[in-house]
Amino acid sequence: MSRNPVAPEFGRERLVFFSDAVFAIAITLLALDVRVPDIVGEATNATVGAAIASVAPRIFAYALSFAVVGLFWLAHWRRYLLIEHVDEGLVLLNIILLGFVALIPFPTALLGEHGDVPISVVVYVLILSATGVMGTVTWVYADRNRLIDPDLSRYEVRLGALRGLAVPVVMLASLALLPLVSTSIVETSWLAIFPVQSLIRRFVRARAEDPPEA
Amino acid sequence: MSRNPVAPEFGRERLVFFSDAVFAIAITLLALDVRVPDIVGEATNATVGAAIASVAPRIFAYALSFAVVGLFWLAHWRRYLLIEHVDEGLVLLNIILLGFVALIPFPTALLGEHGDVPISVVVYVLILSATGVMGTVTWVYADRNRLIDPDLSRYEVRLGALRGLAVPVVMLASLALLPLVSTSIVETSWLAIFPVQSLIRRFVRARAEDPPEA
Amino acid sequence: MSRNPVAPEFGRERLVFFSDAVFAIAITLLALDVRVPDIVGEATNATVGAAIASVAPRIFAYALSFAVVGLFWLAHWRRYLLIEHVDEGLVLLNIILLGFVALIPFPTALLGEHGDVPISVVVYVLILSATGVMGTVTWVYADRNRLIDPDLSRYEVRLGALRGLAVPVVMLASLALLPLVSTSIVETSWLAIFPVQSLIRRFVRARAEDPPEA
Amino acid sequence: MSRNPVAPEFGRERLVFFSDAVFAIAITLLALDVRVPDIVGEATNATVGAAIASVAPRIFAYALSFAVVGLFWLAHWRRYLLIEHVDEGLVLLNIILLGFVALIPFPTALLGEHGDVPISVVVYVLILSATGVMGTVTWVYADRNRLIDPDLSRYEVRLGALRGLAVPVVMLASLALLPLVSTSIVETSWLAIFPVQSLIRRFVRARAEDPPEA
Repeated sequence: MSRNPVAPEFGRERLVFFSDAVFAIAITLLALDVRVPDIVGEATNATVGAAIASVAPRIFAYALSFAVVGLFWLAHWRRYLLIEHVDEGLVLLNIILLGFVALIPFPTALLGEHGDVPISVVVYVLILSATGVMGTVTWVYADRNRLIDPDLSRYEVRLGALRGLAVPVVMLASLALLPLVSTSIVETSWLAIFPVQSLIRRFVRARAEDPPEA
Repeated sequence: MSRNPVAPEFGRERLVFFSDAVFAIAITLLALDVRVPDIVGEATNATVGAAIASVAPRIFAYALSFAVVGLFWLAHWRRYLLIEHVDEGLVLLNIILLGFVALIPFPTALLGEHGDVPISVVVYVLILSATGVMGTVTWVYADRNRLIDPDLSRYEVRLGALRGLAVPVVMLASLALLPLVSTSIVETSWLAIFPVQSLIRRFVRARAEDPPEA
Repeated sequence: MSRNPVAPEFGRERLVFFSDAVFAIAITLLALDVRVPDIVGEATNATVGAAIASVAPRIFAYALSFAVVGLFWLAHWRRYLLIEHVDEGLVLLNIILLGFVALIPFPTALLGEHGDVPISVVVYVLILSATGVMGTVTWVYADRNRLIDPDLSRYEVRLGALRGLAVPVVMLASLALLPLVSTSIVETSWLAIFPVQSLIRRFVRARAEDPPEA
Repeated sequence: MSRNPVAPEFGRERLVFFSDAVFAIAITLLALDVRVPDIVGEATNATVGAAIASVAPRIFAYALSFAVVGLFWLAHWRRYLLIEHVDEGLVLLNIILLGFVALIPFPTALLGEHGDVPISVVVYVLILSATGVMGTVTWVYADRNRLIDPDLSRYEVRLGALRGLAVPVVMLASLALLPLVSTSIVETSWLAIFPVQSLIRRFVRARAEDPPEA
């Protein structure tokens, strides 16, 4: 017990707000690559319009990463409604998670510039999947070290771990399509994250109303 | 009820501070485009002065966007004095709102560089109006899902929804002027946001002192 | 009274943390201009060392602005220990203050690149002085609208207003030296901010122990 | 006593959240230099893959600085679990600490670009060591001014000061290797920070269970 001292409420609050700040900065920096290229020649409706149209792939990459990081934040928010205590091990795992979050603007820029090249898709998938997996790792650690609300059923804890894997599972599975179809079809397949998330959520709720423990 | 679990106080606080962080970063990044161009030849009072003068349109775009995002933040601040609970639906809508807020440096840079080209004005108006509308959407959602202080009168709730529309209404209306007058006159017409905001505020206060429900 | 509704504790907290976030971002972005130029030819201790030495003026500009913005944040921190309530007027004035804070990376970069040209010094002084004056304006507004701890003596309130003026007074006064001496002497004269701040602080403490009201 | 007024709880909270924001921004900006260079010629798996491979040193520098700044934040987090009060002196020292934290993206970029040149390693070590030392300085100041939880034993206070020195000690010691071995071996030797940190932590715990005071 004394080997793993549990920090009081103030420590948990700081962990959470520090994480919020890193998420907020990473999510906002994603938009920094959405910029109009220099216009060659006269700036008119036609040339500026063409310049704006040329940033469409970057706006797509921005929207995609914003949605995924938004989901990651939502998962973090949901987890720390239930994680009641934090110890230094959880803080360290959370810092590693944030290290991946802060890196996301890099694969996002890669996808925005070279999204039609398969290797960009692979790098994007690997970094975002690692982020998602780290989220689940923190949850499992918190469970093993009894940092979670003890009233939560075993069942809900296991589902909490699964829910965070929607992004890695869908994205890693999509890599199997990469040799077969165009990169834009692979990227479109990631929209399956939203129904998968929603399916898991609905599944959690249905079971929560009819718990197997009862 | 159990389909839409209401998060406790801690969840609302995190939503609010995460939003504050995104607003703060977006509003501060607006200034990143205000930079002096490289001086060709010797750096003297004359050449540096000319370089500073050449960033005047970017300072104008910065001040304009800072004022508008400041108003959006003020509206967000005001709303969450009255929103007492948050659920996952509200968190998701709020993330979409923040997705538009984080994008605002893009149309701001566009306006700073090519503010004299009509299409820049159109893109600026569309993105800022979408942000304003999303704010009202979160408010209406919060009202429909009974997340707002129940002591608030129907009347005040409806006005709360209207107040957030000052920016979209004035800006979208100004697009009607675009084929007729210069872009700088259209941009100047946005100053009408401040009296319109103020009119709505005064209107709210007057009615609050003489409530139609009484 | 009902014309100027006072927001509850939660509104004050948000105002303060939003301000902290803008200060933190602006102060951190100041360092973005401290970057090593591209090396022409081979990268050796000599060429990289020369490149590092060439950023010395930018490190000076960074340290200077960091110190001044740090003082502005300290003044903001001190003020809101005593401001007990906030209303929308104070929120608006605070947003204007933050608009100047977020702009500070611009004159800092100007000073880092062209600090030897008088007009850079003038622009730097004007923007930082405006920031300092806005701080005092928020304090005077808070006093006039009875938002400050009522136990604070008239005397301390007046000194609180004066203390925030150390930066504008020293900087604006230094402009008188600009036609006479080199810009680096003018910039060095700003070190007088620290003894002036300290003098005012000591003066406040001495009087607080021997209050004229007693 | 009245010369050094102790700020109430709200002031301590602001100091901590402001610090968290600066840490969060600095740590996230570290990743800004991880960007794919422009592709010359056609963008294919081969050319984009080569471009990604070329940013490997920057990813290494990012991971290294993220780990070190993460440790600094963890030390800050740990310290303010025990620092119960703050005064203006501590706020000022903390601002100086943050001034070094915000500067860390500069030596990180230097290491990412010219990590094979000894002078880059020296600059990196000096700035990160200064940051670590400032952390210990704030702790010693807090102890001397009785701002720390009085229940903490003399022994634990001293160890709290030592623990923060792991980064400066290992890094400064590694400079002795610089004339003898390649820069990459020197950089690898910094991995000793983790076992050293861990040794100190284990040492602290072992002694805490068997306190010399008892």
